[in-house]
Amino acid sequence: MTISALAAMERRGRLEPHRYDPGELGASEVEIAVTHCGLCHSDIHLIDDSWQRSTYPLVPGHEIAGTIVARGAQVAGLAHGQRVGVGWQRGACLRCGPCLSGAENLCAEQEATCLGHAGGLAERVRVDARFAFPLPGALPSAAAAPLMCGGVTVYAPMRRYRVDANSRVGVIGVGGLGHLALLMLRAFGAETVAFSSSPDKREEARALGAHEVVASDQPREVLHQAGRLDLILSTVHARLDWTSYLRALRPNGTLVLLGMPPGLLQIPAGLLVTGQRAIAGSDIGGRADVRDTLDLAARHRIAPRLELMPMAEANLAVERLRQNRVRYRAVLENG
Amino acid sequence: MTISALAAMERRGRLEPHRYDPGELGASEVEIAVTHCGLCHSDIHLIDDSWQRSTYPLVPGHEIAGTIVARGAQVAGLAHGQRVGVGWQRGACLRCGPCLSGAENLCAEQEATCLGHAGGLAERVRVDARFAFPLPGALPSAAAAPLMCGGVTVYAPMRRYRVDANSRVGVIGVGGLGHLALLMLRAFGAETVAFSSSPDKREEARALGAHEVVASDQPREVLHQAGRLDLILSTVHARLDWTSYLRALRPNGTLVLLGMPPGLLQIPAGLLVTGQRAIAGSDIGGRADVRDTLDLAARHRIAPRLELMPMAEANLAVERLRQNRVRYRAVLENG
Repeated sequence: MTISALAAMERRGRLEPHRYDPGELGASEVEIAVTHCGLCHSDIHLIDDSWQRSTYPLVPGHEIAGTIVARGAQVAGLAHGQRVGVGWQRGACLRCGPCLSGAENLCAEQEATCLGHAGGLAERVRVDARFAFPLPGALPSAAAAPLMCGGVTVYAPMRRYRVDANSRVGVIGVGGLGHLALLMLRAFGAETVAFSSSPDKREEARALGAHEVVASDQPREVLHQAGRLDLILSTVHARLDWTSYLRALRPNGTLVLLGMPPGLLQIPAGLLVTGQRAIAGSDIGGRADVRDTLDLAARHRIAPRLELMPMAEANLAVERLRQNRVRYRAVLENG
Repeated sequence: MTISALAAMERRGRLEPHRYDPGELGASEVEIAVTHCGLCHSDIHLIDDSWQRSTYPLVPGHEIAGTIVARGAQVAGLAHGQRVGVGWQRGACLRCGPCLSGAENLCAEQEATCLGHAGGLAERVRVDARFAFPLPGALPSAAAAPLMCGGVTVYAPMRRYRVDANSRVGVIGVGGLGHLALLMLRAFGAETVAFSSSPDKREEARALGAHEVVASDQPREVLHQAGRLDLILSTVHARLDWTSYLRALRPNGTLVLLGMPPGLLQIPAGLLVTGQRAIAGSDIGGRADVRDTLDLAARHRIAPRLELMPMAEANLAVERLRQNRVRYRAVLENG
């Protein structure tokens, strides 16, 4: 049975109705009826082929919530009709070192939900059942969708760098990822400093839980944070003055890049050595991180700020995202 | 009573006999009769004023072993005649956040043994008693001296990044620090890969415990290590192809700079994000690290490879160090 989806037919193309034949359901796969799918900035990169890895037709969408409608012969632990979420990753070898240690996101043989496979802007989607995560009862599907990629991406480094109620954490960028980071950091009991270049977002950041808000386009304001932060999560793709942000770290602090700024980072080595600072990257999260993200969100009533739109208006959502107008995550809904 | 020492009287000056009056002994200070003092590359930087912080006359020397000959009124836990070691740091506030958490090396008010104070190329030296560390009985004073700075500097990141018998660790540079790193990593049970540009050192590295040796001046050899190392300790001050070394890291691996290469590090952000790699600095160690370094060395019979020379030949030692001819640490001895 073919699947009805929305696809870019060429680089930078608009999304158009597209039918594809998914073939036979794999023994380890599930088929999910998509109820909601978040739109992530990576989807724009995929449509635009920014990473030179896209193939067309390209069905984007990797922040999926839905219900199980078919299960392969070997699928265990998931029931027909069960609500599940799917993120950036649709599969991994589950045998290598990273996989065995819960870092399936670093598996060399990982498969992406909408790269070489058809994603979630569709009526249905298929993934390896081990990458379909049961949604807690308390978590609405619309809220779960953006947690599957954006949520996990900000959550994983909080755990890795042991954020707790004594931590002071900076968040660069108040967008899809940044706003989720602020909501979660409040749950951790951390003190948070939001850095944003958008005046209107700076006001909203406080409502999202930021204890302090810094105008990131004012170098003096950023410098004023010198020596104050244990951890900084950078959610933006822009080139920033990394030296100022490294200075904002306390001794032994870490600046974590979640986005990939173009070109080369220019880092004075002395700033790393004195103060024992670090600059690191983080890339979504492993399966345990996904499970824990959903659990945290359910228990702490994390409510992402969404623009809910019908799936048929996907092109409008893409346009708004391109223009940086979404507050803070567009989620497309199948009627 | 004045103290007889060796001092550079001006920038890049030769060491000359120099007498100074240390004044009254502070209540928290001890005076130590120096038996041995290692010569570290930082001493050359101090003599040459590379960091624009030197004042002259400058008495270098911060890898000190000796015996207590005088104690201030408030000194506890150190006996007259007791053997002690002193490293880069001679004091700290002991009240701030870093101090309270055992990272006295990151204290904003830290005092350096031979910067603004007279160092260990002398008959005697004074430091805060809380930075004079009892030497274990099994550890000869000549061996203890280079552990006080070089040893602690390589040991601290091994602990911070949890090196153990399953770790695969790279060491860039087989010199004063690098050779100590190889000896200690063997004690930890880690698998080690030494990177050196000196053909003769590459042969010796195996004797020091390296399981594998890579010609760091052969880009292809370095690239061949891609994805193999959990941790890399860079002990050199030179600019290297950091991209290749980051590629040598396993997922979640860290490249730690112990030396400060000049200029800016040029790092592709994508290499940090995919693979969740990090680049960090490390700066000597805290007091617990010093104690543990000495304990490790005593229990595992870590024997630094030394060139023992009389204190009177300090200028020869400086010359050999400048020419990169020391194998692997010059230690000056008072007769």
